[in-house]
Amino acid sequence: MKELPLSGVYRFLEPGPVVLLTTSRQGRANIMTMSWHMMVEFEPPLVACVISDANYSFAALRATRECVLAVPAVKLASKIVKIGNSSGRDVDKFATFGLTPRPASRVSPPLVAECFANFECRVVDTRLVNRYNLFVLEVLKAWTDPAQKHPKTIHHHGYGKFIVDGETIRLRSGKP
Amino acid sequence: MKELPLSGVYRFLEPGPVVLLTTSRQGRANIMTMSWHMMVEFEPPLVACVISDANYSFAALRATRECVLAVPAVKLASKIVKIGNSSGRDVDKFATFGLTPRPASRVSPPLVAECFANFECRVVDTRLVNRYNLFVLEVLKAWTDPAQKHPKTIHHHGYGKFIVDGETIRLRSGKP
Repeated sequence: MKELPLSGVYRFLEPGPVVLLTTSRQGRANIMTMSWHMMVEFEPPLVACVISDANYSFAALRATRECVLAVPAVKLASKIVKIGNSSGRDVDKFATFGLTPRPASRVSPPLVAECFANFECRVVDTRLVNRYNLFVLEVLKAWTDPAQKHPKTIHHHGYGKFIVDGETIRLRSGKP
Repeated sequence: MKELPLSGVYRFLEPGPVVLLTTSRQGRANIMTMSWHMMVEFEPPLVACVISDANYSFAALRATRECVLAVPAVKLASKIVKIGNSSGRDVDKFATFGLTPRPASRVSPPLVAECFANFECRVVDTRLVNRYNLFVLEVLKAWTDPAQKHPKTIHHHGYGKFIVDGETIRLRSGKP
C-alpha cells in the first residue's frame, strides 16, 4: 500500500461508494458495510457517517473512537453484501469472508488488504451521535493500492441492488 | 411529477449522486451543485449536507431554513458544471442555464422540472452549522418524473471528472 496525501481523500469518498468500516475492541476486529457517509472538509479530511445503533460496530466506534474506512472495488461485491448481512456479534467476519486485516499505523482497527483505499480515522465530534447516530471522523492517514488500476466501485440502491461505476466524463471545472 | 412515498427517498440519495439544491430568498430563487450529502434516517427521511459558507446558497439556507434537493440525470451534466462554476450573486441561474423552476407544495424554493427527482426539505438541525457548515434536513415531500425511465446519475471525482452510472447488479439482501 502506498501513502496517499490527505488532500486526495475526498476524491474517493465524495462519489458515494459503498465502503467498509473496521473497528477493534478488546482485541477483536470487526467490519461492517456502510453507505451513509459524506465529506465534511477537504484537509484535514473530515468525514461524517451514520451507523445504526443496532450494529455491533456502533458501540465499538463510540467506545474506542477509532475506525478505518476501506473502499472496495466491485470484485468484492458478494463479500460486501455478506458482511452487511451478518453481525460481528456472531462471527469473525475477516475469517469468515476471507478478508485480510493489516495493521494500521495510527489507529488500532485494521486496514483491509483487499480494498484499494484505506483511511485511518479517529472520531472528532460526537454531538450528533445520541440524536442521529452521526459521527464526524478525521482521516489521519490514507493509503491506496497501486496494483489496483481504475477500480470500479458500487453504489447501493437498496435491497441488494447496486449500480457499478460506468464511463468517465470530463468537463471544464476548476473546482476540487 | 408524481408523488413518491417518503420511505423511497433514500434510494435516490444513498448512491451518492451529484444533486442540485435550490433556495429562495427575498423573491429570488437560486440553485447550486452539491455532492457532500448523505442519508441520516429512512423515514421521515433525514439528509445531512455540507455547504461552503462561501456559497451564496449558504446564507439563504441558513436564513430561510428551506431548500429543494433535485437529482439530475447525466444529460444535464454540462449545466450541472456551469451551475457549480457560477454564483447566484452574479446571475439568475435558472434563466442563464435554461432550467425551469416549478412551485413546490410545502416550501418556497422551487422544484427543478428537468430533474427526475425533487425533494422538498426544511432544516431541522443547525448544531453543526457553525463548526462544519453541516445542515440536517428533513424531506417533507418527494416527487419523481415518471417520464424519465432508468435515469443515470453522475458522481463527482474532482475538477470536472465525473463517473456515470454503469451496469446494475443484484445480490441477495434483505437490507433496505
